[in-house]
Amino acid sequence: MQKFDIESLSTELDDRILNKINGKTKPIGSLGVLEKIAFQIGKIQNSLSPEIVNPTVVVFAGDHGIADDGVSFYPKSVSYQMLYNYMQGGAAINVFSRQHGIDFKVVDAGIDHDFDPSLNIINKKIAYGTKNYRFEPAMSKDQCLEGFKRGADVIEEIHKEGCNFIAFGEKGIGNTSSAALILSLLADITLDECVGRGTGLDSKGVKSKFNLLNEALSKYDGSKDPIDVLTQFGGFEVVMIAGAMLKAAELRMTMLIDGFIITSALLAASKINSKVLEYCLFAHKSNEKAHIKMLNHLNAEPILDIGMRLGEGTGAVVCYPIVKSAVQFINEMASFKEAGVSESEEVETIS
Amino acid sequence: MQKFDIESLSTELDDRILNKINGKTKPIGSLGVLEKIAFQIGKIQNSLSPEIVNPTVVVFAGDHGIADDGVSFYPKSVSYQMLYNYMQGGAAINVFSRQHGIDFKVVDAGIDHDFDPSLNIINKKIAYGTKNYRFEPAMSKDQCLEGFKRGADVIEEIHKEGCNFIAFGEKGIGNTSSAALILSLLADITLDECVGRGTGLDSKGVKSKFNLLNEALSKYDGSKDPIDVLTQFGGFEVVMIAGAMLKAAELRMTMLIDGFIITSALLAASKINSKVLEYCLFAHKSNEKAHIKMLNHLNAEPILDIGMRLGEGTGAVVCYPIVKSAVQFINEMASFKEAGVSESEEVETIS
Repeated sequence: MQKFDIESLSTELDDRILNKINGKTKPIGSLGVLEKIAFQIGKIQNSLSPEIVNPTVVVFAGDHGIADDGVSFYPKSVSYQMLYNYMQGGAAINVFSRQHGIDFKVVDAGIDHDFDPSLNIINKKIAYGTKNYRFEPAMSKDQCLEGFKRGADVIEEIHKEGCNFIAFGEKGIGNTSSAALILSLLADITLDECVGRGTGLDSKGVKSKFNLLNEALSKYDGSKDPIDVLTQFGGFEVVMIAGAMLKAAELRMTMLIDGFIITSALLAASKINSKVLEYCLFAHKSNEKAHIKMLNHLNAEPILDIGMRLGEGTGAVVCYPIVKSAVQFINEMASFKEAGVSESEEVETIS
Repeated sequence: MQKFDIESLSTELDDRILNKINGKTKPIGSLGVLEKIAFQIGKIQNSLSPEIVNPTVVVFAGDHGIADDGVSFYPKSVSYQMLYNYMQGGAAINVFSRQHGIDFKVVDAGIDHDFDPSLNIINKKIAYGTKNYRFEPAMSKDQCLEGFKRGADVIEEIHKEGCNFIAFGEKGIGNTSSAALILSLLADITLDECVGRGTGLDSKGVKSKFNLLNEALSKYDGSKDPIDVLTQFGGFEVVMIAGAMLKAAELRMTMLIDGFIITSALLAASKINSKVLEYCLFAHKSNEKAHIKMLNHLNAEPILDIGMRLGEGTGAVVCYPIVKSAVQFINEMASFKEAGVSESEEVETIS
């Protein structure tokens, strides 16, 4: 597998970033999470004046063989149909990306459909969907490694265009099944704690989904190697996102992590190189029940908890303006000195 | 006191608004809190296609006699100094309002300072700060009623300019003391549960603040009438905001409620006319410890919980884009029918 050379964040500027934050005309600490975000992005960019340039959300889409078994509330065909919806600008991710001026890109990682090449879809298709992992591995090891490479290539292109801030989205009917299996194996959590409602199963549906996945898991050799796990249970979109994340960290891009599927890709990526986590902000706690367990495993604190579970990267994009606010305040707010406002211990300096 | 004629929200459009939300190309309920917000704003505006027009944040500023007793981490002079900071665009509220294209206005409700009339400050000054309620009522009953009127007048002007969406902010060194007393009396919560760190007191400072406020409370006759409570313990900014809220509800404007001080004004307003609450969204749970008790008393569910406690309306403005996202999705997302995407129970309709 290709090497990703990720640097740990330096502590060199820590004091100066903190002093800048604390000198702003506000009670110390009163911007809460915004102050933590500003601090982290400052560290990622090695700068007292961090910037967000060409923010981009990339949705990776892939189909899942397991979807034929009815693990989802929706038929498999919804995956490719939704890509047409993206092209027409009618999906939630389109609406929110437009709202915030975020560049939106779609990658066909392995959808079971041929798209007209004139459509604005980045073609990285590995196959027409994964195989059904109830019966055989979802993909070959070569396909998995190729997926990492293609995901990394996508990010390299986006980075070349000047982007330093990226969010990932996904589309793939059946992919909460994949994410549940990845979580169970890589975080060592029993499967029943990992299986949830996805796009809207009822409790009977969840039970049936669990039974199918449990059967699939029982046939697996149990290797916890992330490449083995992804080869067996991954979606092509999950694999590509994991590769994209490792490359984004190598390129010192700030990542805003979405929900259950995206975090499962990060979980796998972090088992390959844990430094990838230093470049991540966590947008939200998804309403998919096991997402919080995944976040806890990664010691991640989500910014939002507003009951979202739509996918497509929508949680990240809805959270984006809060991250942007953090960057704005550290750059634009006046300090006590600049504004001539008394600090608490000082005698009044202006009248 | 002037009458505020607030209509209860009609349930007439409920089914149609819900159907519109549920028909969008997403799993039902998957936008979580955004769906609740879209539903509520649709009801407030009696519309399936609600809009936010000329969103505005108005910061009401007033000084507090009690501040001379050292209940705050900062000297009283910081109130007026911060208004100069607002005029120069260097405060947090300036930065976040600019970020989101929100119109920003400042009202002098009763600051202990004379501002140059050429400054862009709306002069509604009732007096040069309230009196110290350790020794006498903060204001006269006439001043209190005049405050309601002036707050309502400010909103009437803003509404005339076409605004239908408003957030309130405040500035006033010492005003968490006022809010704590209002909470204790109007929600019947013991004072020690209501007194917190404000702008940054340590535990010794909180204890001293509690002792001063407890002394003030012990001299009060205990009336729970909201006008009596505000006359005794209010700030001019708190009174004006309460009046502004009642007028905004009368004018069917949507209100995005900020933190501890602003919610204390709403608490008082709601005891005058509880229908005001139907027009409110709650932006965040402040890090000021008693805010959550106040929200619970109002059965209010805050959208954000990101550790903010800065005041100025910053919690509301940082939350604003999430509310805007709710309005955007209900207007701009495609329905399953429009996009030709299969619904879960349907047979595939396009290929």
